[in-house]
Amino acid sequence: MPQSKPVHYDDAGPEVRAVYDDIKATRGIHDVNNYWKHIANHSPTLKRTWETAKEVMASGALDSLVKEMIFVAVSASNGCEYGLRCHTDTARKQGMTDEMLGELLAVVGVASQAKILANGYQIPVDKDY
Amino acid sequence: MPQSKPVHYDDAGPEVRAVYDDIKATRGIHDVNNYWKHIANHSPTLKRTWETAKEVMASGALDSLVKEMIFVAVSASNGCEYGLRCHTDTARKQGMTDEMLGELLAVVGVASQAKILANGYQIPVDKDY
Amino acid sequence: MPQSKPVHYDDAGPEVRAVYDDIKATRGIHDVNNYWKHIANHSPTLKRTWETAKEVMASGALDSLVKEMIFVAVSASNGCEYGLRCHTDTARKQGMTDEMLGELLAVVGVASQAKILANGYQIPVDKDY
Amino acid sequence: MPQSKPVHYDDAGPEVRAVYDDIKATRGIHDVNNYWKHIANHSPTLKRTWETAKEVMASGALDSLVKEMIFVAVSASNGCEYGLRCHTDTARKQGMTDEMLGELLAVVGVASQAKILANGYQIPVDKDY
Amino acid sequence: MPQSKPVHYDDAGPEVRAVYDDIKATRGIHDVNNYWKHIANHSPTLKRTWETAKEVMASGALDSLVKEMIFVAVSASNGCEYGLRCHTDTARKQGMTDEMLGELLAVVGVASQAKILANGYQIPVDKDY
Amino acid sequence: MPQSKPVHYDDAGPEVRAVYDDIKATRGIHDVNNYWKHIANHSPTLKRTWETAKEVMASGALDSLVKEMIFVAVSASNGCEYGLRCHTDTARKQGMTDEMLGELLAVVGVASQAKILANGYQIPVDKDY
Repeated sequence: MPQSKPVHYDDAGPEVRAVYDDIKATRGIHDVNNYWKHIANHSPTLKRTWETAKEVMASGALDSLVKEMIFVAVSASNGCEYGLRCHTDTARKQGMTDEMLGELLAVVGVASQAKILANGYQIPVDKDY
Repeated sequence: MPQSKPVHYDDAGPEVRAVYDDIKATRGIHDVNNYWKHIANHSPTLKRTWETAKEVMASGALDSLVKEMIFVAVSASNGCEYGLRCHTDTARKQGMTDEMLGELLAVVGVASQAKILANGYQIPVDKDY
Repeated sequence: MPQSKPVHYDDAGPEVRAVYDDIKATRGIHDVNNYWKHIANHSPTLKRTWETAKEVMASGALDSLVKEMIFVAVSASNGCEYGLRCHTDTARKQGMTDEMLGELLAVVGVASQAKILANGYQIPVDKDY
Repeated sequence: MPQSKPVHYDDAGPEVRAVYDDIKATRGIHDVNNYWKHIANHSPTLKRTWETAKEVMASGALDSLVKEMIFVAVSASNGCEYGLRCHTDTARKQGMTDEMLGELLAVVGVASQAKILANGYQIPVDKDY
Repeated sequence: MPQSKPVHYDDAGPEVRAVYDDIKATRGIHDVNNYWKHIANHSPTLKRTWETAKEVMASGALDSLVKEMIFVAVSASNGCEYGLRCHTDTARKQGMTDEMLGELLAVVGVASQAKILANGYQIPVDKDY
Repeated sequence: MPQSKPVHYDDAGPEVRAVYDDIKATRGIHDVNNYWKHIANHSPTLKRTWETAKEVMASGALDSLVKEMIFVAVSASNGCEYGLRCHTDTARKQGMTDEMLGELLAVVGVASQAKILANGYQIPVDKDY
């Protein structure tokens, strides 16, 4: 019972449908994925989350592939399986190779190691920063 | 007392000095920063950490600036102040602008939000992944 | 093999049975759930965890529903699936609506975003705090 | 150098000023705090973050004090000092007592303990959920 | 204002004093440290936290030094400065050398790296577990 | 598609085979587990991760069982299911009893609770540290 139910297009109100339509048009897909269908249980969250994602993930000062790879890096760090599945897939479609994924995850590892050692040795920040 | 003491070059043994020399030569700097001086309290950690960082952070399939930005993204996500200071600085020196940092942190925010909603609504991974 | 086995009532010693009996009486249920059956592999942990939960989750200065919602918020933030299932269920039974869950998760998102930006921009705490 | 500089009202462009004005009007304060001044280094982030916070933190299905307490709980869990300072302060101004804060943090503790034990004993979710 | 104030012995009620007395007697110290003085703002939290810590940190199936080192490892992983300071100090007093601390933090690093790679490559658990 | 595929011995290049051979010889096993087969998609990661793990997890100033238990503690804290399965299994084979696992997880709980309270009450580090 606690697990949320997906909101399908046919059962959705006009606000939710408008967001679904925009997602499908923007991404060139025929149906939205589970993520949007579940957060549609609270339509202000759906609207805000989509508008933020649409603005933030679009190419800008950083191109879209770099953004997808940052998303993958953060999800590998914080353990979000759903985000990893979707955005590893998207990044691969935009050109991320096995070599690039390998290097990306290695950087995440170095950053995590740095946190552990900086904490563990209680290292003060250098004065010239 | 529990806070570690930095190991200065003049007090260091030959193994630690060799790593310091390699860091300085590789990075073109006159002294290593606190991070290396503190982890030098355990010389195998210093050696392994430096060799890994040297290999992982060098340009490869991903260029060095992308790697620095991934490092910043992970550190902003996991709350490592030391790493943020050093690698924000390095990324800026390699060309990261305020605009790029703003977009980078926005992507970290979207990825974190995705984790919360995927968890909170207990959203199942889509079948076609 | 590493996965723990549940301790069923019939196989349990008197200390574990006493805790199970108290859980069932307090909550008005016929059997305890997996959480208690697994942590019963270490009976001092079972006893301490139950006594703490019983005291902490009861209505006090904060009512029980607010406490359940805080539990859900923390579990959505730290990615605990087990806790989310149980406590989303309990919170719903105590009156949490879809609207309330939506707002709750949105607050978790704002708090997480604040952490990322406060870290990423290395923002100093205001002097008047 | 890597630490961001605050953007003061007098140096800000019209987009940033409009957000500052709205924050001051909404909250009834004379100056915005460091958080907004630093994220103003990327004006789309300032605008989006403020609009989200304004919408999400307002009383709705959950009242404002419950939302502030959820913010405090998540920040205590994920270790965000900046968020804790601001939102503990706000929650106290809205009526949170020492007793309520004590109970709130105890619930965060119980939720964290549940995550550790559910992970550590690799406890399967109960079938009836 | 939001920062909590320490509760000093002379200002404390009988419940808080009883806990302080027990901490001092158990640890053989003349005054309790800030941790206990601050959580004393909510006396049930003080009592429960101390009783749990006293029971859990005492030598049992694991000796006290191993427990202190596990505490340090978890605090290095989750970024708790306060815990690191206190428990690194205690562990050193019980015999933890620089060599042991170095190895301990290296294990934390390997475990964190494993999490990143297991997540990032979405590695399924082996069937024979 | 985004999920990585395991690299089997027969399909692997000489660099990957050399690592697999070393893992099998060091651990006295007939096949490597999924972890190594998946990270073999990026052979420098496989090589570096194995060499680090081999060096770090071997008995040294800390014996192997203590190291395995620290690994379990960190994985229970950060929620890595894969690591928990493997290393709980290894620790049990090296002598970890239910009693020891129970005490270990209780220490993780105390350390996590300390982080929450130190954060939540914003407790300053004691001067004598």
